[in-house]
Amino acid sequence: MELLKDYIRKYGNVPNDNVLKVDAFLNHQIDAKLMMELAKDFKEHFKDKKITKIMTIETSGIAPCVFLGYLLDVPVVFMKKNSSAILDENFYHTTVHSFTKNIDYDLILSKKYINEDDHVIFIDDFMANGEACLGALRIIEEAKANVSGIGIVIEKSFQNGRKLVEEKGFDIYSQARIKSLKQGTITFVEE
Amino acid sequence: MELLKDYIRKYGNVPNDNVLKVDAFLNHQIDAKLMMELAKDFKEHFKDKKITKIMTIETSGIAPCVFLGYLLDVPVVFMKKNSSAILDENFYHTTVHSFTKNIDYDLILSKKYINEDDHVIFIDDFMANGEACLGALRIIEEAKANVSGIGIVIEKSFQNGRKLVEEKGFDIYSQARIKSLKQGTITFVEE
Repeated sequence: MELLKDYIRKYGNVPNDNVLKVDAFLNHQIDAKLMMELAKDFKEHFKDKKITKIMTIETSGIAPCVFLGYLLDVPVVFMKKNSSAILDENFYHTTVHSFTKNIDYDLILSKKYINEDDHVIFIDDFMANGEACLGALRIIEEAKANVSGIGIVIEKSFQNGRKLVEEKGFDIYSQARIKSLKQGTITFVEE
Repeated sequence: MELLKDYIRKYGNVPNDNVLKVDAFLNHQIDAKLMMELAKDFKEHFKDKKITKIMTIETSGIAPCVFLGYLLDVPVVFMKKNSSAILDENFYHTTVHSFTKNIDYDLILSKKYINEDDHVIFIDDFMANGEACLGALRIIEEAKANVSGIGIVIEKSFQNGRKLVEEKGFDIYSQARIKSLKQGTITFVEE
């Protein structure tokens, strides 16, 4: 998506070869007009899919998701990252390892907000090693819901996430795919 | 706001005399159409104010804020709740006590995303004892930015928050004001 790539080139910050910071428009400050454009692009990409629910993980996936939920008129649900989890029989939960922060956290979802009739688009702001996405997929599968699609705003294609998720049989649509961040230079995968 | 009150009456859950759970449309599952209506109502209420930025605290304030940012075409910034904070000179931070969870957390905001020329509307999903709002106000004041308004989706008016914030000289606009949750019955403040 060219508009997103323009934002990344203009506002992205590369502190080292592995990290792209987009605090200026997605992860701390949010450009709401851009979020609407991301949502329109997801809507167009997934237009042939049956969709009853948009799911994401708190926090930064919420902004594009609520615009997509608005455009499609379906509920948005964010899975919670929890360290003081109330893990009872009312919640699905799974443990996710964050390589970025080198911590484990519980991902939780109330059983009220997913069921086997759901057709879910899972959206996240970043994909790196795929741990968060794989965790979300475990929960969606445990709930016997259907995965209609996976949408990622920014994929770090030099890390393992896409490969691991594709090996599970899922397709991924990423709006921007980063080939390399070496020496502070942002290079995109040629599409 | 009558639409919001209708949602609270229909979908709100009162596990005890102090807690109102609105996981069905705001804090876990999000009704995006409702979020747009909340944003339109905030826009109308603050129409005479100068606004350069919308601020909130992660997580549940983000959804109404991004629609308001979209309608007003100004940036949205969410302050982060951090336990592993990188507290260097690039961030404002303050400690907030959560009575709900009985924990302290750091609220942080990058100095990049606020300055003394900003006119800020601060929005949050809930106001109870006002600790989060007061923490956000401390940061906005430390940055020498101007507070153009405070918007709250649901105010628990039987708790101290409004009083404490008003004592600091700020006005609060709450879209729904809860007078009481006693015996599982939701009563609103008469307006």
